[in-house]
Amino acid sequence: MENLHDAMEVTEAVLNGVSPELTEAVQAALRARSKKKLKLLVKDLDPADLSNIIQDLSPQEREDFFRLIESHFNFDVILELSDHIRQEVIKLIGIQQLAKRLPELESDDAFSLIDELSPEQQEEILATIPAAARASYEKVSSYPEHSAARLMQQELVAVPSFWKVGDAMKHIQTSSSIPDDFYEIYVVNPKHKVLGSVQLSKILRYPTSTSLKGIMEQEVKTIPAIMDQEEVAYVFRKYHLVSAPVEDDSGRIIGMITSDDVVDVIEEEAEKDILQLAGVSETDFTAPFLVTSSRRIGWLAVSLVNALLAAGVIEHYKTTIESKGSLAALMTIIAAMGSASGTQVVAVTVRAFAARVFNTVNPWKTMWKETAIGVANSVFFSIILSLIVLFWFGDIKMALILPAALIFNMCWASAGGVLFPILISRMGLDPAVSAGPLLGATSDVLAFASFLGLATLFL
Amino acid sequence: MENLHDAMEVTEAVLNGVSPELTEAVQAALRARSKKKLKLLVKDLDPADLSNIIQDLSPQEREDFFRLIESHFNFDVILELSDHIRQEVIKLIGIQQLAKRLPELESDDAFSLIDELSPEQQEEILATIPAAARASYEKVSSYPEHSAARLMQQELVAVPSFWKVGDAMKHIQTSSSIPDDFYEIYVVNPKHKVLGSVQLSKILRYPTSTSLKGIMEQEVKTIPAIMDQEEVAYVFRKYHLVSAPVEDDSGRIIGMITSDDVVDVIEEEAEKDILQLAGVSETDFTAPFLVTSSRRIGWLAVSLVNALLAAGVIEHYKTTIESKGSLAALMTIIAAMGSASGTQVVAVTVRAFAARVFNTVNPWKTMWKETAIGVANSVFFSIILSLIVLFWFGDIKMALILPAALIFNMCWASAGGVLFPILISRMGLDPAVSAGPLLGATSDVLAFASFLGLATLFL
Repeated sequence: MENLHDAMEVTEAVLNGVSPELTEAVQAALRARSKKKLKLLVKDLDPADLSNIIQDLSPQEREDFFRLIESHFNFDVILELSDHIRQEVIKLIGIQQLAKRLPELESDDAFSLIDELSPEQQEEILATIPAAARASYEKVSSYPEHSAARLMQQELVAVPSFWKVGDAMKHIQTSSSIPDDFYEIYVVNPKHKVLGSVQLSKILRYPTSTSLKGIMEQEVKTIPAIMDQEEVAYVFRKYHLVSAPVEDDSGRIIGMITSDDVVDVIEEEAEKDILQLAGVSETDFTAPFLVTSSRRIGWLAVSLVNALLAAGVIEHYKTTIESKGSLAALMTIIAAMGSASGTQVVAVTVRAFAARVFNTVNPWKTMWKETAIGVANSVFFSIILSLIVLFWFGDIKMALILPAALIFNMCWASAGGVLFPILISRMGLDPAVSAGPLLGATSDVLAFASFLGLATLFL
Repeated sequence: MENLHDAMEVTEAVLNGVSPELTEAVQAALRARSKKKLKLLVKDLDPADLSNIIQDLSPQEREDFFRLIESHFNFDVILELSDHIRQEVIKLIGIQQLAKRLPELESDDAFSLIDELSPEQQEEILATIPAAARASYEKVSSYPEHSAARLMQQELVAVPSFWKVGDAMKHIQTSSSIPDDFYEIYVVNPKHKVLGSVQLSKILRYPTSTSLKGIMEQEVKTIPAIMDQEEVAYVFRKYHLVSAPVEDDSGRIIGMITSDDVVDVIEEEAEKDILQLAGVSETDFTAPFLVTSSRRIGWLAVSLVNALLAAGVIEHYKTTIESKGSLAALMTIIAAMGSASGTQVVAVTVRAFAARVFNTVNPWKTMWKETAIGVANSVFFSIILSLIVLFWFGDIKMALILPAALIFNMCWASAGGVLFPILISRMGLDPAVSAGPLLGATSDVLAFASFLGLATLFL
């Protein structure tokens, strides 16, 4: 327990790069209209920390902030803001300043910023930036959204294969187009095809006379420009990469993806899966009330349709229920257990898709295994439930019908929990989105129909 | 659509480093007992790909594989295997070979491998490895599980602050204790406290006579050794780090964490959240049937208790239901809508905890906002439902009771969806584990009690 407490304290210290005092000092400087104080406070802040402060300010304070600070802030901060605040800030600083400061960003960040603008703003900014930048933006935009090309930066170091370590070092020292951060250089042929990669730590380890060809890693995981970002993340994770070159369909190197971009993709994709399973499309807590509220309605509407279907089934057996009210209580147990099993299996299957488990594990074998687990667990719980019903209601017929319905429904939910995601993914859709509602709809309807049907026949 | 198809084809090509033909060739070599062929097939394979092949083999084939291959394989493959297969392989190669080959791994990987062994195996291996390695294993093991110390590697480059770029380059070229992969070096004072970091790309860019002190980054995010790995991942993501130094409680540098370790943590933590929300504790598809089956039972038991509570409430209103069977149909609509709203809000809140949103956003404000959204959406759906009931059952009283219960339940689910995770986390527990069942239990009971209670009073 002491360890936990210690850990929490140090965590506070490192994580909260921004203390409440700092935010208050910024607010005081704003009230005092003190340009000098503000610049001093902001100067050495990490963009991520500065973005936290900006988000904590009121809209009026934000307006004052950007008027006072002028261009004396690290422009990377624009990338760290939440979507809604970023839109607000872009309006505050104006398209002209945005265009002027865009070159301070890496190409991938600059381009994704342009993508977020309205069509009119995009037109304005593309008319302002240099022709070369416009051409390269247009080239990248021709690739599909969420593709590797959209994720990569164009800044990288590529050198010919006849170079030696010393040549590469000289090039890095003298060339004007070297990226800020990079971890390896790429050895290419005259057609700009990647032949190998050399980690910087390796360049530093070898004498300058060493041929790059001799020390380069030949098994480079070169990413095709049209590969989906989820696949890119999978390749990075599987092969423990820190950066990888990107090639176009003619095999020419056109960019480089680094692990910090991939970390964001992994977070985004994991978040997408968890939220889609729960029927939500976002977690932006800075989004306005109406936006958040309307985003929730879709799934609730699906749930309502499901619930009406299930209610229709129950209504069909109304007279059976009126003759024995306890059936209403017991039928909800069947539905709850079916839905609990289904939820477990759907979550496991959706994660299996995310982790590419089905590249190496046979999905049908998995379905049979899950169904078998469903059988085993349903038998276990049906015995327990049977005993409970026997003692609670003292009704032997009910104690036999209930387990039968329970086993049927838990098995169906287990099989469907694997089957639906697989079928949906075979249709080219995202299993996380639709597997939940589909299973929910069938499992409640089946639960009520099977239990009340059996009850009508045998009671 | 064409893009999608192209993307899928290239993805296949890059992702499947392992073709079925390769696995078959390995199996053929095993059948032919051809040591030579086997070594040739395995020689240049990435450990991640080799691990896929090993997992595809039958247990008998795996035994043959390790007997034939002897020590002619990249030992990193042991890290890539799934937990169950790794245990099997360790049994096959024996503790002696494991101990002999352990130095080939980075210290963090070697130590986490030892952690996985049984107490007897641990004792055996610790008696075999060199005293220095044993001492450093014991030091790392004294830190809590999932702490930064367990995640870090001890291999790193730390240099004194009076050194110049040229000194650092010479050190990297000549020292015997340089890690395989590293992306920055750390400048430390005589007490080994980190003063700054210098990226390798920067070392390459500056003349050898440049003082390291002059070019080092001073705002280093130094990770305390006892920081939880989830916090480490947060710091890496927030500040876009590729590596970071780790210090003990006296401020001395004791290791380094690199982004590939963090990528694994992010995946693990996201997976844990999604599975815990669904009531599952694992996704290891290679786990034996009984292990998987018993791991599912816990949550199903919780669901059963919840369902029995709800059934108890319904049973209490048995006579009301017997006088009007349609109530049984309608009450399930209330429960379904409440649980759908609750699921949405719990998922959003759990993700907010994972993304440290409540560091900057006020949780109580969030709760009020979510409750307000619950009110808005419940009013919307209660009008629709009211109309449906009016036309379906032609019963005006029911058309008034049903919306009242719906609004009450959706609001409660929305508020509880934020409230439960916050309270659970304040108690020092993981909100993802217990928020779901807690909300599930209260929301079904409240749904049935409120609706049937109102019906008993007014119908």
